[in-house]
Amino acid sequence: MTGKKLSQKERLQPPKGTRDFLPEEMILRERVFDTVKKVFQRYGYDPFKTPAFENFELFTMKESIGTGEQDKLYMFEDKSNRKLALRFDQTVPLARVVSINPQLPKPFKRFEISRVWRYEEIKRGRYREFWQCDVDIVGTKDMLADAEIIDCAMAVVEELGFKDCFMRINNRNLLSGMMQFAGIPKDKVQDAFRAIDKLDKVGIEGVEKELESRGIKGKQKEKLLKIIGIKFGPKKALAKAKDLIGSNKEGSEGIRELEDLLDNLEAIGRMNIVVDLSMVRGLDYYTSTIFEIMSKDQKIGSLAGGGRYDKMIGAFAGSKEEIPAVGIALGIERIIELLKERDGARNKSVTKVFVIRVNDDVKKDCLKVVQKLRQAGINTQVDLMGRNLRSQLDYANSLGIPYVVVVGKEEVKSRKYKLKDMATGEEKQITLEEIISRIA
Amino acid sequence: MTGKKLSQKERLQPPKGTRDFLPEEMILRERVFDTVKKVFQRYGYDPFKTPAFENFELFTMKESIGTGEQDKLYMFEDKSNRKLALRFDQTVPLARVVSINPQLPKPFKRFEISRVWRYEEIKRGRYREFWQCDVDIVGTKDMLADAEIIDCAMAVVEELGFKDCFMRINNRNLLSGMMQFAGIPKDKVQDAFRAIDKLDKVGIEGVEKELESRGIKGKQKEKLLKIIGIKFGPKKALAKAKDLIGSNKEGSEGIRELEDLLDNLEAIGRMNIVVDLSMVRGLDYYTSTIFEIMSKDQKIGSLAGGGRYDKMIGAFAGSKEEIPAVGIALGIERIIELLKERDGARNKSVTKVFVIRVNDDVKKDCLKVVQKLRQAGINTQVDLMGRNLRSQLDYANSLGIPYVVVVGKEEVKSRKYKLKDMATGEEKQITLEEIISRIA
Repeated sequence: MTGKKLSQKERLQPPKGTRDFLPEEMILRERVFDTVKKVFQRYGYDPFKTPAFENFELFTMKESIGTGEQDKLYMFEDKSNRKLALRFDQTVPLARVVSINPQLPKPFKRFEISRVWRYEEIKRGRYREFWQCDVDIVGTKDMLADAEIIDCAMAVVEELGFKDCFMRINNRNLLSGMMQFAGIPKDKVQDAFRAIDKLDKVGIEGVEKELESRGIKGKQKEKLLKIIGIKFGPKKALAKAKDLIGSNKEGSEGIRELEDLLDNLEAIGRMNIVVDLSMVRGLDYYTSTIFEIMSKDQKIGSLAGGGRYDKMIGAFAGSKEEIPAVGIALGIERIIELLKERDGARNKSVTKVFVIRVNDDVKKDCLKVVQKLRQAGINTQVDLMGRNLRSQLDYANSLGIPYVVVVGKEEVKSRKYKLKDMATGEEKQITLEEIISRIA
Repeated sequence: MTGKKLSQKERLQPPKGTRDFLPEEMILRERVFDTVKKVFQRYGYDPFKTPAFENFELFTMKESIGTGEQDKLYMFEDKSNRKLALRFDQTVPLARVVSINPQLPKPFKRFEISRVWRYEEIKRGRYREFWQCDVDIVGTKDMLADAEIIDCAMAVVEELGFKDCFMRINNRNLLSGMMQFAGIPKDKVQDAFRAIDKLDKVGIEGVEKELESRGIKGKQKEKLLKIIGIKFGPKKALAKAKDLIGSNKEGSEGIRELEDLLDNLEAIGRMNIVVDLSMVRGLDYYTSTIFEIMSKDQKIGSLAGGGRYDKMIGAFAGSKEEIPAVGIALGIERIIELLKERDGARNKSVTKVFVIRVNDDVKKDCLKVVQKLRQAGINTQVDLMGRNLRSQLDYANSLGIPYVVVVGKEEVKSRKYKLKDMATGEEKQITLEEIISRIA
């Protein structure tokens, strides 16, 4: 290899775009992952995992992530010249696994919480190594599946305490219909999508300019602007779109799917839904419903995104039949950033009790106390350095450990130990059993 | 890149040495990880994570994994020619993080459950991508730390149901002393270690042959065989070793450390300990105590291994002072294989209830039932394909879902739903509240 030579200091840094997670950060992350997992499982999704890297060629297949994204792959070769790449997302590996495991009962419902890697420009909140939380349903075209995915993802963000979110939905078939209605030639469709996708950032005038600069002018432009300008409640928006698109086949199919989806969401009782005909989403593999969870707080942007990808798995399997699928990925890194801002101070340790051994004479008794606390399921630390009382207290303090138990000669004799509440400073001389029942 | 071109079929396989984990496998793995985590936390270890890859040069530093292991690294370059490598273990990254974060309170106690990668020959039960579970204590030379690590790891394997395990311990200083006592020249020490390390597999005669073939003969050989032949309880074994080694400085230091460790283990009440003077362990970085959890079942071999590495972190930090550390890695992949053999049939889904919607007329009512079950914290699935009753039952059966609730016209009217226990076949017509209190 010809790579750069690093200084001692550089060598010890995490590689660019990656992070070390110290306990204070990991305790929060694990709490978030546990909540996400609990809700996913409540909806009947099962755990599942794929390797950290895949055959490089999996990502270059026509039905995979698309050429625009391939530049972001971390590629390498193993020692037998196999071309490999760290995985880019969790959807393509899922599709691969389902395509080679036709025995899996359908629908196949799985969740995955793992790392993915993308070699991209690093911005605030964007890293090259990050976690994703996905749920997917494989094997049904029923719009009830799309509704369930939406409901489940919304339940996750609500459980995490985001109360002001809504789901923004659209449909790729409807988008195709719009393009046909507006008379956009096939080779300009991607340009049009890209321009429309900027609506949030640049406003309708911005989109107009963007369309012009991409050579979409006159009637074509006017028709597109008319459609993306539709801003009503879901049902009205669809009626209006229907009027405009008329008998266009793909467009009508898209509208039918959206209507069906809205009916299902109503049946579930999930009402915070907005149909947004200007939403496009980047990835090539979507074929029907697409959606994003948005916060009403404009600064925050989207917390999750996904959609239906009915062609990928069948194409991977080399089958003529579709194996339909729908899924969503939570932007868990952004969610964690928001929780940090919202909740402020965090725990530095999972430890609940620190046991102080006053001196070496009481070591044995002290270790017995520690064992009993642990047996009672209480997360317990004990001095491992033979330090004095002051240093032991300082250590417990620096980790924010809520309770301290003092074991000295007197305590051993009386079998009553000093329990100190580190937040209030309150001290009590009580038996071990009383200590356990107080803090377990 | 010049790598091989893959066929469609090869492209869809997980790369060599890696695995896909379907739900049946993942449900078991997560249960194991959760148990491990619970016990680690009970001992006051905090969660912590480092990136999947590191700067390649981290692993080639003198104090790192050693030249013998470097061949096993998965190396690659990112698009800015940074030389990177997937991580080989969790110890070197831990040492790196501590070396650049001097503010961390000491002792620093963390656990990590993550993947590591080693490009090695694949054998039964050995993969190139696998999980490790580590606990480490950084910042104290006190042998109470070694004792706690041993106690904690034993508590994990016991909690997982392995009742016939013991901890085999030795000491690198004592090993050095033995080599000096036997008069082994420095350049033959590694050879001697490798020969001794084979004792389990080839017996004492095998070791004798191995020593001879490596040029260790006559008095040197006799002296070595005498020491590794010592087979008494821990205290006697140490007394005997002391007699032989006499005033050798490193050897005496090793014996003192072992005695201290045994005292601490006795104080904790952890008695299933064997001192084995023939145990060496492969990695270069150990400096003092080394240990392995063994099963009494000879076929199984070691379930965990670790030791004290007092020089690595200080060397990384470029400090003249030692930053001592001790830790253990559970061989969690082997443990999982053993649990599979032991426990037999496994769950294919986390889902507890499947709700059957008899037809589309009751869809709304059916979805309400589903919502209520989920709100009660019950993992619930509902038909997402509009299938007939038979197919819905077959699906629930194929996933081993324990309960089915039937929602039809009659049930909606009477507000009593049919609850079927899939294991016994028993059916009951009861209210939703009764269903929830029965299975929550």
